[in-house]
Amino acid sequence: MVYRKTRAPYVQKTDRDQKLRIIVLGGLEEVGRNMTLLEYGQDIIIIDMGLQFPEEDMPGIDYIIPNISYLKGKERNIRGVIITHGHYDHIGAIPHLMPKIGNPIIYTAKLSAGIIQKRQEEYKNAPKLKFYIIDETSKLHLGAFNVEFFRVNHNVPDSFAVVAKTPVGTIVHTGDFKIDHNPINDKPADLGRIAKVGSEGVLALMADSTDAEDEGYQISETVVSDELERIFEKAPGRIIIGTFASLLNRVQQAISIAEKFNRKVIIEGRSMKTNVEIAHKLGYMKIKPGTLLEIDHYNQKDYPDNKIVILGSGAQGEQNAFLVRFAEDEHKYLSVKSHDTIIFSSSVIPGNERTVQNLKDTLARKGAKIIHYKLMDVHAGGHAKQEDLKLMLRLIKPTCYIPIEANHYMLQINAEIAEGLGIPKENIFVADDGQVIEFTKKGGRLTDERVPADYVMVDGLGVGDVSNIVLRDRRVMSADGMLVVIATIEYKTGRLIGNPDIISRGFVYMKENKKLIEATRMKVKKICEDHDPKSPAFDDFIKNKIRDDIGQYLYQQTKRRPMILPVVIKV
Amino acid sequence: MVYRKTRAPYVQKTDRDQKLRIIVLGGLEEVGRNMTLLEYGQDIIIIDMGLQFPEEDMPGIDYIIPNISYLKGKERNIRGVIITHGHYDHIGAIPHLMPKIGNPIIYTAKLSAGIIQKRQEEYKNAPKLKFYIIDETSKLHLGAFNVEFFRVNHNVPDSFAVVAKTPVGTIVHTGDFKIDHNPINDKPADLGRIAKVGSEGVLALMADSTDAEDEGYQISETVVSDELERIFEKAPGRIIIGTFASLLNRVQQAISIAEKFNRKVIIEGRSMKTNVEIAHKLGYMKIKPGTLLEIDHYNQKDYPDNKIVILGSGAQGEQNAFLVRFAEDEHKYLSVKSHDTIIFSSSVIPGNERTVQNLKDTLARKGAKIIHYKLMDVHAGGHAKQEDLKLMLRLIKPTCYIPIEANHYMLQINAEIAEGLGIPKENIFVADDGQVIEFTKKGGRLTDERVPADYVMVDGLGVGDVSNIVLRDRRVMSADGMLVVIATIEYKTGRLIGNPDIISRGFVYMKENKKLIEATRMKVKKICEDHDPKSPAFDDFIKNKIRDDIGQYLYQQTKRRPMILPVVIKV
Repeated sequence: MVYRKTRAPYVQKTDRDQKLRIIVLGGLEEVGRNMTLLEYGQDIIIIDMGLQFPEEDMPGIDYIIPNISYLKGKERNIRGVIITHGHYDHIGAIPHLMPKIGNPIIYTAKLSAGIIQKRQEEYKNAPKLKFYIIDETSKLHLGAFNVEFFRVNHNVPDSFAVVAKTPVGTIVHTGDFKIDHNPINDKPADLGRIAKVGSEGVLALMADSTDAEDEGYQISETVVSDELERIFEKAPGRIIIGTFASLLNRVQQAISIAEKFNRKVIIEGRSMKTNVEIAHKLGYMKIKPGTLLEIDHYNQKDYPDNKIVILGSGAQGEQNAFLVRFAEDEHKYLSVKSHDTIIFSSSVIPGNERTVQNLKDTLARKGAKIIHYKLMDVHAGGHAKQEDLKLMLRLIKPTCYIPIEANHYMLQINAEIAEGLGIPKENIFVADDGQVIEFTKKGGRLTDERVPADYVMVDGLGVGDVSNIVLRDRRVMSADGMLVVIATIEYKTGRLIGNPDIISRGFVYMKENKKLIEATRMKVKKICEDHDPKSPAFDDFIKNKIRDDIGQYLYQQTKRRPMILPVVIKV
Repeated sequence: MVYRKTRAPYVQKTDRDQKLRIIVLGGLEEVGRNMTLLEYGQDIIIIDMGLQFPEEDMPGIDYIIPNISYLKGKERNIRGVIITHGHYDHIGAIPHLMPKIGNPIIYTAKLSAGIIQKRQEEYKNAPKLKFYIIDETSKLHLGAFNVEFFRVNHNVPDSFAVVAKTPVGTIVHTGDFKIDHNPINDKPADLGRIAKVGSEGVLALMADSTDAEDEGYQISETVVSDELERIFEKAPGRIIIGTFASLLNRVQQAISIAEKFNRKVIIEGRSMKTNVEIAHKLGYMKIKPGTLLEIDHYNQKDYPDNKIVILGSGAQGEQNAFLVRFAEDEHKYLSVKSHDTIIFSSSVIPGNERTVQNLKDTLARKGAKIIHYKLMDVHAGGHAKQEDLKLMLRLIKPTCYIPIEANHYMLQINAEIAEGLGIPKENIFVADDGQVIEFTKKGGRLTDERVPADYVMVDGLGVGDVSNIVLRDRRVMSADGMLVVIATIEYKTGRLIGNPDIISRGFVYMKENKKLIEATRMKVKKICEDHDPKSPAFDDFIKNKIRDDIGQYLYQQTKRRPMILPVVIKV
């Protein structure tokens, strides 16, 4: 306890105590890794704790989590972690970060808690989490913050926006949201309550920018349902629907329509199965008894093809996901039939386009009919488009506006939308990850203060241990491979023992390049023989010489630059 | 000569001589690598010879070229190489393949020849090419083939479709095409002549499927010009236009509009400069004297920002391209200003989305206004959409249809379009690369014969020398790095000399993982000491043991799987 006290920073009342500090640790320069801090004096609340999928120049990295260096020493100030909904870009860092901040209480809706709980079980050393279940009627007192919630739509049930009443004014954080007047398996966004929150005065609105580039309104899930029904009416054989395991509303739609058309539903893919189980158990899914069919009970004689729907993950072409194994004939029970109708009911995540194209090619080649969201409305996004953002802005009527949850460019477009509705430019804050936004009762400003927000990469069991050097080495070896040169030298005589050994991978096919390797070996030999191993700094000298000369020689010969690793062994 | 004669395959008249064989070596399973053979008896003509950009799982590969194993021994049958237009996916394999097929005459339009010639200069060992310049009036007699051309639109001038009159009937190959009634710097596609070709009877039409997924008509370049003019009217400062170096029609548009608005034009990026020079010299570009400004003559005092247009490459975020260097403040003369208007006048190639997003973020962060083709019509594609394909089909009225130039899935959609217009399914051939399509006067059929069409990868100076093993090694090292274990053993005594050496890159940061490395070293030591180096097959045994045990140990410790390379040195 003494230790904690000495390290607690804001024991004395300072000027800073009179200000609200908003720090977004992730989600202002990327889609994902969402995490926001609200800090007032010695009280901190956290909104979301998500992961980000790696960039293309981060080979081997599993995902990226927010950097919480700023919270070091402030653990006891944390009054709670609020989670807006149960998607990985909002919950994915929980197993890694909660133990480091003293495992505070998580405030979230029932379904989100179920999903978080389930994921936690995959991390054996992670602590048991403490939950407090919230809904639209909850009123929390978290230190200086009084927190309430209102319901928004997304593509998973139980998505909430956060209304944080602070001593300087009310901050509204939308989380991921869209406004759907006819949602499926969910209540519409509560416009009346949103208007009421707005009418009571809002200092700042933090709003989802993911789809701010897109004009118009996000399409309703009902439109998707109608389109799916039309496809069900015509499909001559099995219907296979690929989507994200996390789009639980889409899964519900598919199940309900299948029931209407008397089709049995097989759910494939571990995470989709798990999610459906959780949601069903918690009362978030309506499934009639007998609708679901276990794959190992699926006898193709008993169930004609036009009585079957298969729901699975893999619409992004993810390795090992159901749809990919199905397409590649690697599924234990199922393979593509020529009368299958395959629906890609998800948008394509940037970076996955070519993988998805390959998947479609493979399926098309086997004669299946493919329907994707570009051809028909078989997918609705989960994020507000421009008109939805305007509606939210008009209802909340905030003094200040903070675009969040996207790349910088989208934040700017979102900012322009707010400006177009009359919010003065000086009250709109397009910040970077880690940049402190400060509020008093009079208003806000973007400060120059920046807390650490750089990448914390998760790779296997390692969290934050993969450095830029490791990544750079991976990139170099990925482009042109590597070559290890081993020279064994007899220390007493300075004589090279035998010929240098050369091991190479990813550079050239060794068996077909014996001449090149032999010439390289002779060059190394000459370098070694030309220098006296007893001379000072021989090791470093000879290693650099081999690295430079052999690197240059191989580049001349091949126009490739493998990583050269010289090893000198003295015996 | 004798040598050639003995290797020529079809000296005797056989049944095969009576058939036309169409073999597409590249472009039926991908966008790019376009190359088609028409073979009748001892006569072969080649249409296009392009490259394909590498797939994501081919790290380090520069590009892929068509596999021409089938032409081995048939070199003297080749009557000519026809190039439809001057884009790399149609010309890029020329420097590599022409020397291997006896450097036959290239039949192509003037501008295409200029571009091919220029690229050839980059390959020092490539032979001097022989050109025969064609236009819409040309009539070639190439062995059994009488070849004519008709003009189509694309986004480079001088794009032609090929009309090959063969002994069994006429084959039309569209090349890349769209139909633009109001093109810029180009004549409209010659619908009258296309109709005439159609009225004379066409056995098979081979047509561009690149945009077959898209409904409607491709937008006209005039629409793009109108939109650009609107932007020019309002832009307060400099206008920077990023596009492909090869989209010469777009470059012309930008220059003409700049002239209209009295702006000087700076062209940046080596390949764009080169292309403009070639096109200008050959009379394909209209540029008033004094319009172009060399960057080193650009004195910012003499030219106010609203009198400047900068045209450059890099709209795909290509490393080292102008727009990227400009955004990153790495350009020698230019940096982003807050009143710049930056136009991304090109579509985003699948796979580049995230890179382009990062580029936009960087530019937006510096206050520039960004306009891209999703927001406004500042780009028109170069390929036929569904209605354009229908128009071509109606005019050509072919008996048979062969979708080309895209992934399998797009070929199928293109096939469905033709089917919808009444071409019987059995006359539509959706083939794979290398699959032989056979025609007699009575009609065609897709055969089971397949000639080699697998990837030939170009990596530096190596052509086709990067095997799957090399690529697999690159992928493994890219994901989890590698670890070299060197055990030095005294042969006489079987004693391990010193401790094993361990070198690792891309796996963990060595300095921060000394314990792990030390534990690994001790495990290797134990493995070596437990086995007698004089036992038979000791080397292989010990290497496998190290690979397996250390691999497993490191996976347990880190959940990463670096490549393990054991080396045993006996002294």
